[in-house]
Amino acid sequence: MTLSGIIAYPITPFTNDGRDIDFHTLGKTIELLIDNGSDAIAPLGSTGESAYLSQDEWRQVAKFSVEKVAKRVPVVVGISELTTQLATEKAMFAESIDADVIMVIPVSYWKLSDQEIQSYYRTIAESTTLPIMIYNNPATSGVDMAPELIVTMFKEIPNVTMVKESSGDIQRMHKIFELTSGQLPFFNGCNPLALEALCAGASGWCTAAPNLIGALPKQLYESVINKELSVARNLFYRQLPLLRFIVSGGLPKMVKAGLALNGIDAGSPRKPLLEANEDEIKALEILLSNI
Amino acid sequence: MTLSGIIAYPITPFTNDGRDIDFHTLGKTIELLIDNGSDAIAPLGSTGESAYLSQDEWRQVAKFSVEKVAKRVPVVVGISELTTQLATEKAMFAESIDADVIMVIPVSYWKLSDQEIQSYYRTIAESTTLPIMIYNNPATSGVDMAPELIVTMFKEIPNVTMVKESSGDIQRMHKIFELTSGQLPFFNGCNPLALEALCAGASGWCTAAPNLIGALPKQLYESVINKELSVARNLFYRQLPLLRFIVSGGLPKMVKAGLALNGIDAGSPRKPLLEANEDEIKALEILLSNI
Amino acid sequence: MTLSGIIAYPITPFTNDGRDIDFHTLGKTIELLIDNGSDAIAPLGSTGESAYLSQDEWRQVAKFSVEKVAKRVPVVVGISELTTQLATEKAMFAESIDADVIMVIPVSYWKLSDQEIQSYYRTIAESTTLPIMIYNNPATSGVDMAPELIVTMFKEIPNVTMVKESSGDIQRMHKIFELTSGQLPFFNGCNPLALEALCAGASGWCTAAPNLIGALPKQLYESVINKELSVARNLFYRQLPLLRFIVSGGLPKMVKAGLALNGIDAGSPRKPLLEANEDEIKALEILLSNI
Amino acid sequence: MTLSGIIAYPITPFTNDGRDIDFHTLGKTIELLIDNGSDAIAPLGSTGESAYLSQDEWRQVAKFSVEKVAKRVPVVVGISELTTQLATEKAMFAESIDADVIMVIPVSYWKLSDQEIQSYYRTIAESTTLPIMIYNNPATSGVDMAPELIVTMFKEIPNVTMVKESSGDIQRMHKIFELTSGQLPFFNGCNPLALEALCAGASGWCTAAPNLIGALPKQLYESVINKELSVARNLFYRQLPLLRFIVSGGLPKMVKAGLALNGIDAGSPRKPLLEANEDEIKALEILLSNI
Repeated sequence: MTLSGIIAYPITPFTNDGRDIDFHTLGKTIELLIDNGSDAIAPLGSTGESAYLSQDEWRQVAKFSVEKVAKRVPVVVGISELTTQLATEKAMFAESIDADVIMVIPVSYWKLSDQEIQSYYRTIAESTTLPIMIYNNPATSGVDMAPELIVTMFKEIPNVTMVKESSGDIQRMHKIFELTSGQLPFFNGCNPLALEALCAGASGWCTAAPNLIGALPKQLYESVINKELSVARNLFYRQLPLLRFIVSGGLPKMVKAGLALNGIDAGSPRKPLLEANEDEIKALEILLSNI
Repeated sequence: MTLSGIIAYPITPFTNDGRDIDFHTLGKTIELLIDNGSDAIAPLGSTGESAYLSQDEWRQVAKFSVEKVAKRVPVVVGISELTTQLATEKAMFAESIDADVIMVIPVSYWKLSDQEIQSYYRTIAESTTLPIMIYNNPATSGVDMAPELIVTMFKEIPNVTMVKESSGDIQRMHKIFELTSGQLPFFNGCNPLALEALCAGASGWCTAAPNLIGALPKQLYESVINKELSVARNLFYRQLPLLRFIVSGGLPKMVKAGLALNGIDAGSPRKPLLEANEDEIKALEILLSNI
Repeated sequence: MTLSGIIAYPITPFTNDGRDIDFHTLGKTIELLIDNGSDAIAPLGSTGESAYLSQDEWRQVAKFSVEKVAKRVPVVVGISELTTQLATEKAMFAESIDADVIMVIPVSYWKLSDQEIQSYYRTIAESTTLPIMIYNNPATSGVDMAPELIVTMFKEIPNVTMVKESSGDIQRMHKIFELTSGQLPFFNGCNPLALEALCAGASGWCTAAPNLIGALPKQLYESVINKELSVARNLFYRQLPLLRFIVSGGLPKMVKAGLALNGIDAGSPRKPLLEANEDEIKALEILLSNI
Repeated sequence: MTLSGIIAYPITPFTNDGRDIDFHTLGKTIELLIDNGSDAIAPLGSTGESAYLSQDEWRQVAKFSVEKVAKRVPVVVGISELTTQLATEKAMFAESIDADVIMVIPVSYWKLSDQEIQSYYRTIAESTTLPIMIYNNPATSGVDMAPELIVTMFKEIPNVTMVKESSGDIQRMHKIFELTSGQLPFFNGCNPLALEALCAGASGWCTAAPNLIGALPKQLYESVINKELSVARNLFYRQLPLLRFIVSGGLPKMVKAGLALNGIDAGSPRKPLLEANEDEIKALEILLSNI
């Protein structure tokens, strides 16, 4: 199982003031992402408010997504749990429903030592045969995994096979490349770094942007692959203001607001997250119409 | 309900490789803290691994603690939840079991805006008549509440009546004092800042240290109250190396290791948190014997 | 030579759009500082725009200050040079004019290693018999000296005998105290930390505030010495808004503006530093009148 | 005057324990840089220890460099001064000796407001007809100029025509591009970001690396221009370990050590900067031989 290209992140839509999951709309956005050329679908990521769901909700969304995608592309299921036990249970469930990959981020309350992080991943990895994508996103998870640690786990844990780097620091990607002579596939998880990550050798781009701007991210990826650097640069600068805006406002809030502007009512994020306010919606509308 | 002095934090002891709660030992440590002169007991704080417990476990620990303390001193129950819904349910439960205060920290995955934080506290506050202590600890929760925001909530939400400041920045306490002319009681939540916080006017000190060093924190508090500044300084520098060590190593891990050295087997923290390693235990032993 | 209490920092007044030094006003402010009970006078510090003067101007200000103070209190001459050579020349000059102490801060362009910092201080120390106060102020100098490094130099270089800590981190002062069992005298160099530094055992407070608020800083120092903690706290919170304001606006600019409000025309800082604007002057006026 | 490609930075070699300038070796390194295809020569930059020279030395190096280059390529003279007055004098001198461009960085002791920075650049710009390259390098200068400020000065000050961005943050370059629709030429000043900066549209790369690795930087530049992205990536990863090493060790120290390994004795940096130690020299030797 090797992934490349655009790994697209659905939101998790709620009805009823954030209380119930709206599977109908979830299905619609999954179709939208596939239609836009996504090379994989990744439910239950940061964009999917994974950390805000109950265990039961998480299972329902995972199962629904795998069934909806129906092997048209690989499904990467996100796991973000504070305890090793719950993360392991989710990993086993993901395998049981025939997901293709799990993407695992160790959220923290107390800071984790490298040894604790390794033990976390090792325990999860031993519970499943699925390939694991390490997900580093210190801004949301509170855990920052250095390239050296990531590479050690890649070398020592057989089913750790990919990494999504969302720290926003291109030097991390350089280091991962160097330490493995390019053998550890890394994916860009920081939207405003997409051009550079791909130029530096990223295997792909993990992004929720296709929810709002269709095939543009895929076109950027392909133009880099095809060495059309001026085309890539133009495509990147065209998307960049929107990418920056949805990231800085928070992806669940902004993607849901953008979907609404495009005619898909995906409800509000779960509280305490609030929906976009009027100023944000106006700014988003302008950004979308300018693309 | 006004608190002052030492608010002491029990650990949550586990048996069976971190899977079950050891209520017998929990009871013992609560007695230990009361014996050492604690002015309030605060189960389910950061030290109590609140964030790592299931909803059901959390309820059991809260109930047990309230019953064990049995009104000898006030019980401050800690709530650290990602969603407003779950935090509100816990607040109502705390009231139902006759806890005295709830201490609330809004842990985050996606960064929260000030409006989202206010809405979080307001919703919780409306669900209970218990007094609420705002708990600011950006290093663990990922949410940093500025003094201005804290003071706004104190002024606008009737049952927000106290704050525990654990950012480690004494200037935050100055600002809280100034903005309210000293009317908002603030508690020090950063052990290595205890002397200065008390000198700057803190109402008390929230600490797990009495688990390991008995009445020393209380003596420090009292010497400041009695204006015996040289005594206070001596007491502080005597405790400081230990305080710094248990904070930097992580309180659940280090307090449990220290209790074991003192003859109380409190088990290990819940995974991915690991127990203290040999070097840490040796260092802790030396620090404890030097006091 | 041991110092304690208030070490007061004169500004360097300029005439003629910042081009020439106004010795008449310099003399006036030195008298003002002595009248307000300062225990030492420290020309050519950060407040004195030391780094902005030509070598010749620096020498003139140093000589004038020593003569003006005329041994009524010790004179601490500030040296902030990029190269070891120029710093050494100034140290020798300070001794030649009979200054009492030199306060040395190693400003940087390229980051300095600990070895480079030690070599810098050692070379300067070997050129003079004057006692040296190490001055740590990373925000202005770009060099951050850890307590461990400072203590090493204190132990290894005979005439390094004091330290001014301006990082604003009270934990640095704790560490200096611990590493030397209180034997290395440390001075607070961060105005909004004055109360806590003195409570934690600082020998004194290095400050430009007496230029504007007379004997208040000295009273704060004495109330801590006399263990009148409530008095100290009141004095501190009374001064704090002003202290914070002049620090955040930049001391040369704000002290000069404040002196003007008090009837002493000290001119503008040297360009690119600009004088306080109207809003700043108004805010300063209110803060001064509220004390 | 528009620049593009590789702007190469000579060191300033000293003889006699850092006291005198070694013009013979300076000439040799300038020839070396031109031979390696440099598109411009930039004496008196960070690498050239500009901030560590006396006014007189600075003038001699500027004059010598312009004469040595003799219009074969443009000469960009670096100015890094604390006061507006001295910076202006240097700007006028640079014009008087027929330099082509001045690169100006406002080093700071007291933090500068945007207004102070603008006034600094404006005053310098009014003293000369030379084009000015704004140089942003917060790590060395202590001044961080946001893209918005840089663009404002580009729009308002006629002879501000280029920017060298050394903050290491690719997002700054994105912002400069966006705010000017690509009209403000920006140069990469952070060696380990060379590939990404060029891919993102940088006009060139300001670097001391050609002192040690000959034409490799120029080849990287050209491969990006020619859209040979895999070639560029290979060239970049080949150079990267060395680039990272010389930056983190300090360019003057490391470039001088590397020149010595290549048979050019360029002496030591000026104190307090020390020469590379044995371990550093060994590491450098390995990195150079691996390329």
